[in-house]
Amino acid sequence: MDIYEAMSTLRAVRRLKPDPIDEDIVERIFTAATWAPTGGNMQPWRMIKVTDPAKKQALEDLYRPHWESYIPGYEKKMESMPASVQSSSRRALEAGTYLARHLHEVPVIAVFCYNPSIMTITDADQPRPSVVGGGSVYPAVQNFLLACRNEGLGCVLTTLLCIEEPSVKKILEMPEDWFTCAHVPVGYPVLGGHGSINRKPLTTMMSENTWGNLA
Amino acid sequence: MDIYEAMSTLRAVRRLKPDPIDEDIVERIFTAATWAPTGGNMQPWRMIKVTDPAKKQALEDLYRPHWESYIPGYEKKMESMPASVQSSSRRALEAGTYLARHLHEVPVIAVFCYNPSIMTITDADQPRPSVVGGGSVYPAVQNFLLACRNEGLGCVLTTLLCIEEPSVKKILEMPEDWFTCAHVPVGYPVLGGHGSINRKPLTTMMSENTWGNLA
Repeated sequence: MDIYEAMSTLRAVRRLKPDPIDEDIVERIFTAATWAPTGGNMQPWRMIKVTDPAKKQALEDLYRPHWESYIPGYEKKMESMPASVQSSSRRALEAGTYLARHLHEVPVIAVFCYNPSIMTITDADQPRPSVVGGGSVYPAVQNFLLACRNEGLGCVLTTLLCIEEPSVKKILEMPEDWFTCAHVPVGYPVLGGHGSINRKPLTTMMSENTWGNLA
Repeated sequence: MDIYEAMSTLRAVRRLKPDPIDEDIVERIFTAATWAPTGGNMQPWRMIKVTDPAKKQALEDLYRPHWESYIPGYEKKMESMPASVQSSSRRALEAGTYLARHLHEVPVIAVFCYNPSIMTITDADQPRPSVVGGGSVYPAVQNFLLACRNEGLGCVLTTLLCIEEPSVKKILEMPEDWFTCAHVPVGYPVLGGHGSINRKPLTTMMSENTWGNLA
């Protein structure tokens, strides 16, 4: 698939079939992640491919309550949205609830892990939340998502389980010095899957030489 | 370009020509970034396209001393590397020094900015460096890099200037509540540009169901 077509039709697909995925395809999407750049080419990240039903159920059991506690606030926020945005937000909410109840049956959950002790985190001393460690792992996650899109597989980047990281680490038997940063359920789409996306225009996202009129 | 070809040949290209880039191409690479997914589709990030010679020089003046102070430690680390790795590390170091001395003349530096106050940072309370904010901006940076590769443009993800964030914000006239997370110089390659990459094999990067034998 052409790269711009893949990027511009990569949606968050949250309704996923339990149908199995061919091993060849699984290998291609995980391999695509390994190609991503990292600071100093250290590749300070790893993936755990979760396929075991008991482990997927355990992740769902951790995920669902956090998703459900997120709904009331989201619904409140929706009240102040314009009607057009409200309906798409409502659909996203329903799809999120579907995911929260079916995570146990998706064929694969890719858990992305990282080790900050082998990263050079250049914004560690700035007086605001650090993100630079993410620069050596989310490019890999994006490769993975684009590869799923290329293979016709639904997927969505989630980070909600980071709240439950100590429990997730126990389930996946992770060592002390490695942590989690993304959980990507993967499967064939129940509905239309990937397609048109809704993003701000370039003029809203980019300025030249100074911040200018950005908001 | 096929998506797997682009990903598997995306190199860090640090020797960039000062030659201008067609406006159409510039628009395509920045637009590709806007397509990336973000938490809740909030798109809590922006780009500043830096083309003004004085501003590029000011960024280089901030960048160069940090790069130069990084060299001795890197050279020391190289001593303990196997010979094969040493020579590629030496080449990367030389290319990095080239970049540090020519940043002022690359046609475009893309500065990626983000606003943590409109992000849901789910790992904020974990007792380790947070990365989740990066999950809503580095996928966009990766799209941008892949788009550059697709257009035959050299590029490299740098984060060194985050150390000098207050000064960078002043140069780019950024508001108080927005911060920087990546600086990507872009230009046509002086040498071979993109091509083969050196990454760990999938078996080293991925395990199934538990951490297992990963290191």
